[in-house]
Amino acid sequence: MAAAAMSAEELQRRLHAEFPEAFNPSSGLYIEHLEYGACRVRRKFDPSTLRPGGTISGPTMMALADVAMYVVVLGAIGWAPLAVTTQLNIHFLRKPAPGDLLADARLLRLGKRSAVGEVTVRSDGEEAPVAHATSAYSIPE
Amino acid sequence: MAAAAMSAEELQRRLHAEFPEAFNPSSGLYIEHLEYGACRVRRKFDPSTLRPGGTISGPTMMALADVAMYVVVLGAIGWAPLAVTTQLNIHFLRKPAPGDLLADARLLRLGKRSAVGEVTVRSDGEEAPVAHATSAYSIPE
Amino acid sequence: MAAAAMSAEELQRRLHAEFPEAFNPSSGLYIEHLEYGACRVRRKFDPSTLRPGGTISGPTMMALADVAMYVVVLGAIGWAPLAVTTQLNIHFLRKPAPGDLLADARLLRLGKRSAVGEVTVRSDGEEAPVAHATSAYSIPE
Amino acid sequence: MAAAAMSAEELQRRLHAEFPEAFNPSSGLYIEHLEYGACRVRRKFDPSTLRPGGTISGPTMMALADVAMYVVVLGAIGWAPLAVTTQLNIHFLRKPAPGDLLADARLLRLGKRSAVGEVTVRSDGEEAPVAHATSAYSIPE
Repeated sequence: MAAAAMSAEELQRRLHAEFPEAFNPSSGLYIEHLEYGACRVRRKFDPSTLRPGGTISGPTMMALADVAMYVVVLGAIGWAPLAVTTQLNIHFLRKPAPGDLLADARLLRLGKRSAVGEVTVRSDGEEAPVAHATSAYSIPE
Repeated sequence: MAAAAMSAEELQRRLHAEFPEAFNPSSGLYIEHLEYGACRVRRKFDPSTLRPGGTISGPTMMALADVAMYVVVLGAIGWAPLAVTTQLNIHFLRKPAPGDLLADARLLRLGKRSAVGEVTVRSDGEEAPVAHATSAYSIPE
Repeated sequence: MAAAAMSAEELQRRLHAEFPEAFNPSSGLYIEHLEYGACRVRRKFDPSTLRPGGTISGPTMMALADVAMYVVVLGAIGWAPLAVTTQLNIHFLRKPAPGDLLADARLLRLGKRSAVGEVTVRSDGEEAPVAHATSAYSIPE
Repeated sequence: MAAAAMSAEELQRRLHAEFPEAFNPSSGLYIEHLEYGACRVRRKFDPSTLRPGGTISGPTMMALADVAMYVVVLGAIGWAPLAVTTQLNIHFLRKPAPGDLLADARLLRLGKRSAVGEVTVRSDGEEAPVAHATSAYSIPE
């Protein structure tokens, strides 16, 4: 297991500083673990993310998967804010009950110009995933 | 061209009533056109959706594509709030400048238990798409 | 409508010469139309592509979609045999009856290093699509 | 770990009997492992699957991923030949050198009407994956 290009705390601090719309105390996003090629991001429960029926909405899971991919890519290549998602595919597997969500991202391939990873999203404390995503990233030169 | 199961106004009214978290005056979502198998949804510009570099974020486009798919499905089958997205794949094609986004959704297949559609997202006034999504929906019995 | 980088005949000739495993008289692939950003590829019916139930198999449609994307990319950038598919997403919409398949590909974005397109596959003579794919290509420098 | 609905040998025998076009001695497909929710399928090397540059073609990997999903679904629900792929997304990660391919499939969700799984494809003896797919299946009633 190689070391990440920066620590979880350092990356979280920079994301908060430079992406204040997405990463701020009210967005409820926390990098819980970061190593080279893998990370875990927590999304604290927010009642405004519920949809009718009382489960957490799809766009909430999509946004979390996208953030987790960004974190695992930056954790491997270092601070490169202009890295951008080029594609994301997500399967919604189960409806998440109200509560925190955990996203575990893992790189499948890291090249010079692009990266591909997968993200498994679970409700905190549950084993069965609520969503699974794969995503491609473009890395600036 | 078959008629939609309900008018754009009626569907918008029901979505506002039953999905107030997603459809409300501040979410900036408007159904501009609805026919059987196709719709257009506008997402009014909101500066809080910008990411560093001054372009509209990926999760904003994903959420809009998801809404447009929901609208085109309900426009074809009628009010069925428990229809759920099972899968969504999106390609981010260009970075959208600040401004309204327009999502044109079209059904590719409508079965009894499932639907598949595609969504093209453009910046208002531009021809080249900023994102393209395909998505599958599960329809409750 | 811009002109393609080469004619359908010229591209087909080169594909036959350099990809004899994929393009040969027995593979039944014909470029019927090629312009800048769009193409149509025909796949002649071959009974060995049927699956139980008498419909054409999924891998046959996937391979055809992949070929059509390759053709539309080469038709836009010129002969670049090392261009490679990096991702393909396909929805199977209807089971194709025995007969020729037609794949219409269209570029959604063409950049210097990558391309994204969509492909609609139909049974010859039918309007409703049997499959719809989107795909990303990496373009060598 | 629950038992599969049938053994690898039994499933392979039935696939050979009922899908002779896809499963036959010359197709080089072998179910090496089958348990409830997971399987491994080997694809013996066949020089006709090479593309220019001497690596195994994308459609070969797509077809293998599709077969592995079919095997893992049937291994969980039992013999149901009318189960059909509804969607498949694949990322091509590395170019496979000539040699056998191994596909490890895993169910992410198994419902009454549908299933979702992921497949990792590797060259035999290599750790880094050459392709990764996710796929949805429709299960007949």
